[in-house]
Amino acid sequence: MDEGLRSLTDLDRVIHEPARLLIVTILSTVESADFLFLQRETGLTKGNLSAHLTKLEGAGYVEITKTFKGKLPLTICKLTKPGLKAFNSYRQQLAKFIDKTG
Amino acid sequence: MDEGLRSLTDLDRVIHEPARLLIVTILSTVESADFLFLQRETGLTKGNLSAHLTKLEGAGYVEITKTFKGKLPLTICKLTKPGLKAFNSYRQQLAKFIDKTG
Repeated sequence: MDEGLRSLTDLDRVIHEPARLLIVTILSTVESADFLFLQRETGLTKGNLSAHLTKLEGAGYVEITKTFKGKLPLTICKLTKPGLKAFNSYRQQLAKFIDKTG
Repeated sequence: MDEGLRSLTDLDRVIHEPARLLIVTILSTVESADFLFLQRETGLTKGNLSAHLTKLEGAGYVEITKTFKGKLPLTICKLTKPGLKAFNSYRQQLAKFIDKTG
């Protein structure tokens, strides 16, 4: 068995989940993003987005800061260094998979 | 938002699960495979492999035939045409993702 293929079972489940992969991909392209922006970009419901962000925060991949813009609450999300590293490493694993099965 | 990226949330969950992705990848390279071969190649436990095969069979992606080799039971697994189609389409979606985030 090709060890590279077997390593598929080691894929980072936190990032592998499609909605979280989408969130992390978006955050990898910006300095930071607020909750409403992420909701609009991903098309996720408020509850789903919130649950996925909590999971990403728990893994140390996303930093969430709650603040105010005037009187309106503002939730700022930012990919952490470990988050970016995990994302890049996940991408590399997928690229290898695509390469090996091509 | 890049619609190609948003389509990540449409990824086929049956195939996206890493252990099932590994099983389907192996089956895509052979005419058919018996249960013990798959167990050895994937490194999955008997129970896990069995559960994932049942899920793949339920989706119509894998055809499972139970027979005998002498007096020993033999379970033959084969990727169906819809299974191969789903695998190829999944690979293409991943390849697009890799391409867009590169």
